[in-house]
Amino acid sequence: MSIFVGIVGALGYTGAELIRIICNHPEFELKFATSRQEYGKKLMDIFGHLKDTKEGEIEIIHPDRCREIDVDLVFLAVPHKTAMNFAPIFLDKGIKVVDLSADFRFSDPNIYEEWYQTKHLHKNLLNKAVYGLIEIYKNEIKKAHLVANPGCYPTSIILGLYPALKNNLINPSPILIDSKSGTSGAGRAAKLGVIFSEVYDNFRPYNVAGGHRHTPEIEEQLSKIANTNIYVSFNPHLLPIQRGIISTIYVTLKNNISFDKLYKTYYEFSTKNRWIRLYPRDRLIETRFVRGTMYCDISLCFDQRTNTTIIISCIDNICRGASGQAVANANLMFGLEEDTGLRNLALIP
Amino acid sequence: MSIFVGIVGALGYTGAELIRIICNHPEFELKFATSRQEYGKKLMDIFGHLKDTKEGEIEIIHPDRCREIDVDLVFLAVPHKTAMNFAPIFLDKGIKVVDLSADFRFSDPNIYEEWYQTKHLHKNLLNKAVYGLIEIYKNEIKKAHLVANPGCYPTSIILGLYPALKNNLINPSPILIDSKSGTSGAGRAAKLGVIFSEVYDNFRPYNVAGGHRHTPEIEEQLSKIANTNIYVSFNPHLLPIQRGIISTIYVTLKNNISFDKLYKTYYEFSTKNRWIRLYPRDRLIETRFVRGTMYCDISLCFDQRTNTTIIISCIDNICRGASGQAVANANLMFGLEEDTGLRNLALIP
Amino acid sequence: MSIFVGIVGALGYTGAELIRIICNHPEFELKFATSRQEYGKKLMDIFGHLKDTKEGEIEIIHPDRCREIDVDLVFLAVPHKTAMNFAPIFLDKGIKVVDLSADFRFSDPNIYEEWYQTKHLHKNLLNKAVYGLIEIYKNEIKKAHLVANPGCYPTSIILGLYPALKNNLINPSPILIDSKSGTSGAGRAAKLGVIFSEVYDNFRPYNVAGGHRHTPEIEEQLSKIANTNIYVSFNPHLLPIQRGIISTIYVTLKNNISFDKLYKTYYEFSTKNRWIRLYPRDRLIETRFVRGTMYCDISLCFDQRTNTTIIISCIDNICRGASGQAVANANLMFGLEEDTGLRNLALIP
Amino acid sequence: MSIFVGIVGALGYTGAELIRIICNHPEFELKFATSRQEYGKKLMDIFGHLKDTKEGEIEIIHPDRCREIDVDLVFLAVPHKTAMNFAPIFLDKGIKVVDLSADFRFSDPNIYEEWYQTKHLHKNLLNKAVYGLIEIYKNEIKKAHLVANPGCYPTSIILGLYPALKNNLINPSPILIDSKSGTSGAGRAAKLGVIFSEVYDNFRPYNVAGGHRHTPEIEEQLSKIANTNIYVSFNPHLLPIQRGIISTIYVTLKNNISFDKLYKTYYEFSTKNRWIRLYPRDRLIETRFVRGTMYCDISLCFDQRTNTTIIISCIDNICRGASGQAVANANLMFGLEEDTGLRNLALIP
Repeated sequence: MSIFVGIVGALGYTGAELIRIICNHPEFELKFATSRQEYGKKLMDIFGHLKDTKEGEIEIIHPDRCREIDVDLVFLAVPHKTAMNFAPIFLDKGIKVVDLSADFRFSDPNIYEEWYQTKHLHKNLLNKAVYGLIEIYKNEIKKAHLVANPGCYPTSIILGLYPALKNNLINPSPILIDSKSGTSGAGRAAKLGVIFSEVYDNFRPYNVAGGHRHTPEIEEQLSKIANTNIYVSFNPHLLPIQRGIISTIYVTLKNNISFDKLYKTYYEFSTKNRWIRLYPRDRLIETRFVRGTMYCDISLCFDQRTNTTIIISCIDNICRGASGQAVANANLMFGLEEDTGLRNLALIP
Repeated sequence: MSIFVGIVGALGYTGAELIRIICNHPEFELKFATSRQEYGKKLMDIFGHLKDTKEGEIEIIHPDRCREIDVDLVFLAVPHKTAMNFAPIFLDKGIKVVDLSADFRFSDPNIYEEWYQTKHLHKNLLNKAVYGLIEIYKNEIKKAHLVANPGCYPTSIILGLYPALKNNLINPSPILIDSKSGTSGAGRAAKLGVIFSEVYDNFRPYNVAGGHRHTPEIEEQLSKIANTNIYVSFNPHLLPIQRGIISTIYVTLKNNISFDKLYKTYYEFSTKNRWIRLYPRDRLIETRFVRGTMYCDISLCFDQRTNTTIIISCIDNICRGASGQAVANANLMFGLEEDTGLRNLALIP
Repeated sequence: MSIFVGIVGALGYTGAELIRIICNHPEFELKFATSRQEYGKKLMDIFGHLKDTKEGEIEIIHPDRCREIDVDLVFLAVPHKTAMNFAPIFLDKGIKVVDLSADFRFSDPNIYEEWYQTKHLHKNLLNKAVYGLIEIYKNEIKKAHLVANPGCYPTSIILGLYPALKNNLINPSPILIDSKSGTSGAGRAAKLGVIFSEVYDNFRPYNVAGGHRHTPEIEEQLSKIANTNIYVSFNPHLLPIQRGIISTIYVTLKNNISFDKLYKTYYEFSTKNRWIRLYPRDRLIETRFVRGTMYCDISLCFDQRTNTTIIISCIDNICRGASGQAVANANLMFGLEEDTGLRNLALIP
Repeated sequence: MSIFVGIVGALGYTGAELIRIICNHPEFELKFATSRQEYGKKLMDIFGHLKDTKEGEIEIIHPDRCREIDVDLVFLAVPHKTAMNFAPIFLDKGIKVVDLSADFRFSDPNIYEEWYQTKHLHKNLLNKAVYGLIEIYKNEIKKAHLVANPGCYPTSIILGLYPALKNNLINPSPILIDSKSGTSGAGRAAKLGVIFSEVYDNFRPYNVAGGHRHTPEIEEQLSKIANTNIYVSFNPHLLPIQRGIISTIYVTLKNNISFDKLYKTYYEFSTKNRWIRLYPRDRLIETRFVRGTMYCDISLCFDQRTNTTIIISCIDNICRGASGQAVANANLMFGLEEDTGLRNLALIP
């Protein structure tokens, strides 16, 4: 069986990661890749690592031409606002869609419109879209035609808090989140703030105190899990590394809940999910251990001096936080094992 | 006027930084530099950047020989436990001492002995030692013969919290501290955990939840400032950069205190102190802006969604967090301007 | 079919890379991994990225115990001098061996003994060992019981010069080689010279002017190819990156040879070999395009001003320059496709 | 005495470096700084490291307004082609000019026009401009009104070859130059090729085989020194570091010249020049030892196997290769010591 795949917006880092995974995927076959700027070139002209591969020889097409090509599945790897216009085109033809943008992540269009400063033009699709976090919505994803692939920070944070909130083990407030992300999260775009000389040998916070667009996405999902309104203080920082997000999350246990109970709950969660790895109590996660993989690694710590519980979760922002997760969603949508094409381990060092 | 200076333990990174600063210091003249392993060599044999300088030509001596050389001032840049035995040797001869180790930072020897797992052999000196944080103890430092130079993390955290705690603006609990430090803080020593291949393109927490030895140092100083017992959750992370610490500190304002009031208090603090820079509300600090300098840069943020106040402080761990601060202390001890030899700005990029 | 595999010296970076590749290899099954220091632990205790894998659960054994375990194939990933003593143990039992050290790379034991400053204790094996450069010795490798896996620099340089020397297109002298290698080549060992703070944001030559042990290995192989004595000036530099070697090689074309002829010869070479990629004339290779792969990428340039031909070759020093090549050799020794388990592409970024 | 200084094009990295040096310069006082895009802001709005300094408070002006302000000296830190139009404006008013662009570096305008693809509009100034390499043209610089500040690569290469060519010790051909530069050389500009994710953990050649514009500059200067036409093969590579150039230069000694003779000649050169440091024969230069300084460090090596002499020279591309050298030139033009404001050492680590 071969499932034919197209990528709209193939030349960003999420596009590149999709192509890399598809190259080694036993069932997916890349049929088209679009770019508004670079159409006419071959993929290997842009991405040298694809040289001498079948995929590298594919000619990039203008997005207007993507309707002409027969596929079973499309990944939208274009920016929000652009993505929402592509989704119905494919859905109407019966083609399944995984959208890596934020356009279909919210159930309430007002929240989307407020935070993304744009009108939502396909609100009718919002309640058909499934939020593609496989540990939570696996059954829904299997049946979905449109999956809204989660954001990178939200993936690390929601997975880090899910067992605690789902099982009512922590207080819903305060939840303080200190996140650190590699620079690839800023995308493949020429912006002064991310040139090498501005980022290397440097570290800095940005969009702290609720200024980041991932805040409402995190809050909507956590509220659904906890079945109560959750507000978080989300504070991202920019790391001078390629890939990797660590979210250090500060919470307090409910009165009658022990740290042991919390640990056991997370352990069970990890045994039931292919890509959740709970670290032993005396060991801490590192971004390099998830590089290029789908794992969400978690450490749990308890600070007795201050009665603080610290949940530290770690993902690769491009693979787990975007393209790998998109492929896992697509696997489920087509009845494949969720880890098809996604079994490799991190490159160390 | 020339003040003759010696360095015990000159070949670590704090030693190297002391030498760099002394090379450009108009009043200090380096007379000796010791190393137990490398004596007999010249400083430039170890530190190529000193080649063709007067200091680079200095022959490293064995620490046993440091008594033979006439100096006015000694910097102890050896590990804790070793430092405490050197201090009385010099003090007894009327030589002033700045100790960069932890040996004289605590007023209670029991806390030292518990956290550093060693007997304190010169407890009588503890109450003569002044904690060398110049923004707080300037007058005491001017009269001191023995200064205990603060740790790097404590410098960033105590300065970040000082105006708030001193003026009773925040609740004493919880104080959650998420710190990130450059790898130079691990010192110039061959340890597997800090070789390039283990650190580069990686990020990780370590010694979280109160496991780091700087915890009691931070708590003692904060408790003195607040005039009440303060306990903090201190959680360090290792950054793949050379120099720089950012401490992101989560606190809550007291009931009747506005964020405006807090900001103004910090602004006043910054105007009264040579090296405190408070950033405008819409701008965030970055480690590179303090590289190689004595500045402690501070950003203040308020997260309305969760009523959280976020204090972000930033220093260079080797300069402000160790050797530069040691020189500033020495300047004060000898009646010089505190910034003598310390006026350079960060190298960008 | 399952081929049982052991690794002697599993805890260096070449060991880690062997394990990573074997984890995804459809035919190889890891049966033992040794370490003289860390036996008794599980592999995942050392390598966090192996957590929750079958291989990660394997208990590391002392090398003395490796005879007890039934395997078909052993990789020797221990230092030279140690490796030579392990080889006969396995060979005598009919177990095939790929040795990643230098111990069996030379046909003349005197050259080995001079450059590696040690007696060779198993000279009788030298003429049974096949030099494992698959583009040159494929047929011999298929029949070999002992393969001497090439060094990293030699791999990049020999492949870069092979088509030119084999076809008599360049003058045998001068051949000037300016190589640059990532720091992982220095291994997983605590040495002051490779700690992060000494390597990061720094670049430096080392062992230039024929001081590097790879010099005689390069010269022996090039001499065989050219059928005349070849001497090279080999000059390595240390790059502050994880993986990757670029060798910039300066040669002159023979009188009657055009650059076009050279280019066509390399192009043919690339079409006949799975992992040789010749870049178009207007494009230059980059280390990231081969990261984690078996590719040897080559750019050819001609400098008309000075009549200089510049061959630039690029490999991943750990994968192509060590463990990946070792697996490819093993594939051939067991009648598998050479790229079994080695089909992944580089992670970008 | 105070010398009033202006900077045209202050917001690139050479501008930033000029400001940093001027901040600590005892005689120069910054009077204006221009930017076509960011005028109206303060310098510290762009460069956070200038916060709370006198210079940081200076308001950036539009370049059209720079004539209004009285200064004694102007640094042109704008791109080539733009610079040539500013020079006469200031020169006509008797203001001395140091131009950091390539516009006045060539004696032959045809070569400039061919390589920089633009008409030279002020050819009459070419023979008034002095090439600002202080080791060679010190006397001319002292009397100059217009100094053409050398390029970064040329500085490292010309200084590396000067003693050998001046004293007729090496053959004029072949001269093969393998250079490696930090990314700051690409400037403070948003270009896709230099964003962090494209540069970090990567290494690559570019503009090899005579494609780089610094080629004719190097050749003109070397030809003057050698008093014969010199052609070089100049091959640059991009390093993932901030600052630093290493040029590894391959030459052959003249028949009757020993390597000892060469070494002694360089040693003499180093003793006569403030910033030339010749390393001992058993030690090699590193970029970090010159970081932020004016030093040109040199190692000399002889490869007996191939009779090759290897000259390795090392500078900081922004300080020695641009702004520091510009200040040194200005010092000489105003009768100051050449190292005024330029005495600091490298920051290690």
